[in-house]
Amino acid sequence: MNVEAEQVRSMVVSFADAWNRHDMEALAGLFAEDAQFVNVVGLWWRGRDEIRGAHEFTHRTLFKLSHLTVADIDVRFPTADIAIARCRWVLDGHVSPEGAALPDRHGILASVVQRDGQQWRIIDSQNTDVIEGVLSRPQ
Amino acid sequence: MNVEAEQVRSMVVSFADAWNRHDMEALAGLFAEDAQFVNVVGLWWRGRDEIRGAHEFTHRTLFKLSHLTVADIDVRFPTADIAIARCRWVLDGHVSPEGAALPDRHGILASVVQRDGQQWRIIDSQNTDVIEGVLSRPQ
Repeated sequence: MNVEAEQVRSMVVSFADAWNRHDMEALAGLFAEDAQFVNVVGLWWRGRDEIRGAHEFTHRTLFKLSHLTVADIDVRFPTADIAIARCRWVLDGHVSPEGAALPDRHGILASVVQRDGQQWRIIDSQNTDVIEGVLSRPQ
Repeated sequence: MNVEAEQVRSMVVSFADAWNRHDMEALAGLFAEDAQFVNVVGLWWRGRDEIRGAHEFTHRTLFKLSHLTVADIDVRFPTADIAIARCRWVLDGHVSPEGAALPDRHGILASVVQRDGQQWRIIDSQNTDVIEGVLSRPQ
């Protein structure tokens, strides 16, 4: 694997590492200032500050003791300075708003990553729950 | 709005138009041959053929009489030849696997679009349901 692909893969791993340390400053620092993030229930956050604030809230509550594991990281380079990274993830240790333990949750996270000088930054992420055994789902 | 932004917006509108004509050849034609698409339940399709095949199946069944409306189209250009387009959508007229009418469904579709000569092609899409009133959701 070339150096750039390894750098982009490490962004995905760093997202999980920051999540698992519940270090939202580190997590937000992976994103460009004007990045957007859509979470698994379609909350659309615009800018690093919103992304940080939303994750700070959930990591004080629902995700306080949660652990994120990423797998199947797929990286493509439509141009030399832009990558699309997608991975599967499993979340365990999370709780309901009422504090009850919840079963493992599965999803897919896509991120667009752009080279910014010597480093890469996430400029866009969208997250989707994996619901097994269906093609679509009534809401 | 500049010409390029208008072209990318028209890709998003063309996706909805093809959906509403249930013309999966036209819908698939918006995508690059090696595009990826993750749908609202986390099915991960790789390549235009898989994207077409999956949509052909759902448009013969669940989405046969469905109508997709897009709104709030947001377009950014990280480079001159790459755009990130995101929109909200509402789907009506769809049915359950058992054929029962379902309420309107809401979501957010993100697409990465790349200039390919004189035209633009979608190289990546990820779709997420909007679930109102929650920060997260037990699966």
